[in-house]
Amino acid sequence: MAYGKTATVIGLGSMGWGAALSLIRAGFLVRGVDIRPDVLARFSAEGGEAHASPAAAAASEIIFLFVVNSDQARQVLFGEDGIVAAAPHGSVFVLCVTMAPSQTVEIAGQLVRAGMQVIDAPVSGGHLKALAGEMTIMGSGPDAAFAAAEEALAAVAARVFRLGEEIGLGSRVKMINQLLAGVHIAAAAEALTLAARCGLDLRTVYDVIRVSAGSSWMFENRGAHIVEGDYTPRSAVNIFVKDLGIVAAEAGREGGDTPLTRTALALFQEAAAAGLGLEDDAAVAKVLAERAGLRLPGME
Amino acid sequence: MAYGKTATVIGLGSMGWGAALSLIRAGFLVRGVDIRPDVLARFSAEGGEAHASPAAAAASEIIFLFVVNSDQARQVLFGEDGIVAAAPHGSVFVLCVTMAPSQTVEIAGQLVRAGMQVIDAPVSGGHLKALAGEMTIMGSGPDAAFAAAEEALAAVAARVFRLGEEIGLGSRVKMINQLLAGVHIAAAAEALTLAARCGLDLRTVYDVIRVSAGSSWMFENRGAHIVEGDYTPRSAVNIFVKDLGIVAAEAGREGGDTPLTRTALALFQEAAAAGLGLEDDAAVAKVLAERAGLRLPGME
Repeated sequence: MAYGKTATVIGLGSMGWGAALSLIRAGFLVRGVDIRPDVLARFSAEGGEAHASPAAAAASEIIFLFVVNSDQARQVLFGEDGIVAAAPHGSVFVLCVTMAPSQTVEIAGQLVRAGMQVIDAPVSGGHLKALAGEMTIMGSGPDAAFAAAEEALAAVAARVFRLGEEIGLGSRVKMINQLLAGVHIAAAAEALTLAARCGLDLRTVYDVIRVSAGSSWMFENRGAHIVEGDYTPRSAVNIFVKDLGIVAAEAGREGGDTPLTRTALALFQEAAAAGLGLEDDAAVAKVLAERAGLRLPGME
Repeated sequence: MAYGKTATVIGLGSMGWGAALSLIRAGFLVRGVDIRPDVLARFSAEGGEAHASPAAAAASEIIFLFVVNSDQARQVLFGEDGIVAAAPHGSVFVLCVTMAPSQTVEIAGQLVRAGMQVIDAPVSGGHLKALAGEMTIMGSGPDAAFAAAEEALAAVAARVFRLGEEIGLGSRVKMINQLLAGVHIAAAAEALTLAARCGLDLRTVYDVIRVSAGSSWMFENRGAHIVEGDYTPRSAVNIFVKDLGIVAAEAGREGGDTPLTRTALALFQEAAAAGLGLEDDAAVAKVLAERAGLRLPGME
């Protein structure tokens, strides 16, 4: 089969939407799949081909998966109306879902046995980078698959790390990134809550620390949400309940010890249990503020 | 009293040595105090006035304290041969020691009652920045004290944050910085240990994550030590046993909850108990590697 300029994007959420639009801008015919009718209508208006069923969007050479977790991935791939049964032999599946590495390996194996090519391709960068076609891909997979998908990957990502031919490498590196990201968000919450408890001005603390040795990408990004008391979800608490859950479970399988991950995970779980699951992940600060009998900005 | 260009630096360690040399370069007559004869000999060779006794170095207008903790600070200030009894009324004491904020407040109160001026002035930036006269000072204290010390502060620091007139503000912001720094070092150790346990190449993981959302100042800095297996102490495990101990104790006093700090502190304490106290603080990774039955680079 010849690889041209057709692509399917399954899951038009925060990252998938940006990828799909970037592909349209790059001249691809893009088939978008989502279960939300309003999202499909918007996608049509942007010049995409909108489908409610994965199987109906199977005719593309490159198929991106941007669903939320491994259960959804299995469903859209192999479930009722799944895309694999309908896709041409040799189609390239680009798995952009943050999944446990062991799940990625299992799902990729099924795809390969069904005659498909696979790239393990978790992404990072957030919604705005995705919209700009500037995501980062932590990729692994056979060279042939990367060659076939090259133009599509270039359309959605500013940076494609090639971590090796083995499926699972991409997901493992992404997992390590999520470990750090999740612990750093919780640390930013702990630091700013203690600062408030000590009577410090949060804006001042933020301005000093973001240029000091205590800074992190997440402190700079999510710390601003806490200082401003703005918990509009850019990325939700529930995402880190999932992602740190993956880290803790995989660390258990691998025989690693992750005490900070477990501590941060417990905070995100407590936030979700308190009804904050759909708020911005910085809302983990509210859990610590409650424990300290404190009102942070934006808390009633 | 007129403020001219004389300064005393008590404690010619990693940061104090850099501050003292920066002051000499700026044209100050600098009196250096240390208990190590070899350090004093080197300081004389650099053009400083070397003293083994704090009291003998009391004639300066600006007196910097760069000792390790509040016990040492009390000793050199108020102990036998202490500098306060010998110093002129109105001398400016610049407290650059990382101490519990409550200790800073107590010691500053004693200094003020003895007729001295005080700046709460914890520093950050590391040895190389100190040598270059480019430390960051997280400062608080009366405007008059800052005005008197202005030229000396400019000689040692690239950036002087003025956090307010109240003594304790500087130490509190520094404490929040140390909370984050310590948790981030332990997180870098946890992440890279899990990466190794998963069979990932540490150099690759480091290169990907330092430009991703999981990055932190400490991941970039200390992560490199772990990847290279180089535990030459730039800053030692024992420093974070002290600094995170301060955070945990002060959080307890203030009624804040710091679960990540407690988790990281336990790791640093375990590292110290395992005989790693004088190694680079990144050696906390060895504790997690031992638990995972793993040999990181640089571990025998």
